[in-house]
Amino acid sequence: MPDTLQWNERGLVPAVVQDAATNRVLMVAWMNAEALRLTRETGQTHFWSRSRQEIWHKGATSGHTQDVVSLHVDCDADVLLVRVRPAGPACHTGETSCFYRTLDEALAD
Amino acid sequence: MPDTLQWNERGLVPAVVQDAATNRVLMVAWMNAEALRLTRETGQTHFWSRSRQEIWHKGATSGHTQDVVSLHVDCDADVLLVRVRPAGPACHTGETSCFYRTLDEALAD
Repeated sequence: MPDTLQWNERGLVPAVVQDAATNRVLMVAWMNAEALRLTRETGQTHFWSRSRQEIWHKGATSGHTQDVVSLHVDCDADVLLVRVRPAGPACHTGETSCFYRTLDEALAD
Repeated sequence: MPDTLQWNERGLVPAVVQDAATNRVLMVAWMNAEALRLTRETGQTHFWSRSRQEIWHKGATSGHTQDVVSLHVDCDADVLLVRVRPAGPACHTGETSCFYRTLDEALAD
């Protein structure tokens, strides 16, 4: 994979996933070189699960895959922005976006 | 600061900054508890600069401050989404968004 991407000390970059139709920010997850390679090859988002320590094809179980519309990188080349067409909610809770709570709501929980 | 936020091993969370008017993703930076406290108190984004190891008031030098419109947290409580009204470009290059290049463009540089 490209040397120009600035992987962190664990070989990961954060990937911001945005709905290409609504522009809503859906989720943030992590990619390693293999997840990025699979994302580009298949046209669907793949991530590195830090908790399970394995590649995670988003929607493989739920059916809520994300078709990649475009892939952008930031000026420092250490964050990816992935614009997608989602086949369903991004969040495991069933919410469209993982950012469904304000910080104040979350702190009040 | 709230114990419910899941700071990483360095005491940081990534913060996705989105233009509240255009919905464009402008940048991703990192906040520690102090940066988040200052962001909430002042209503303008503050981050932790990992390279300079100091609090960074966005726009303090350039004038390109970001007024906070809302603060959301994701389902895992380890990423913030900050919707803002920017006073100027987010990127130090003068581009509106730090995500001004596709990955392919960046790799071809």
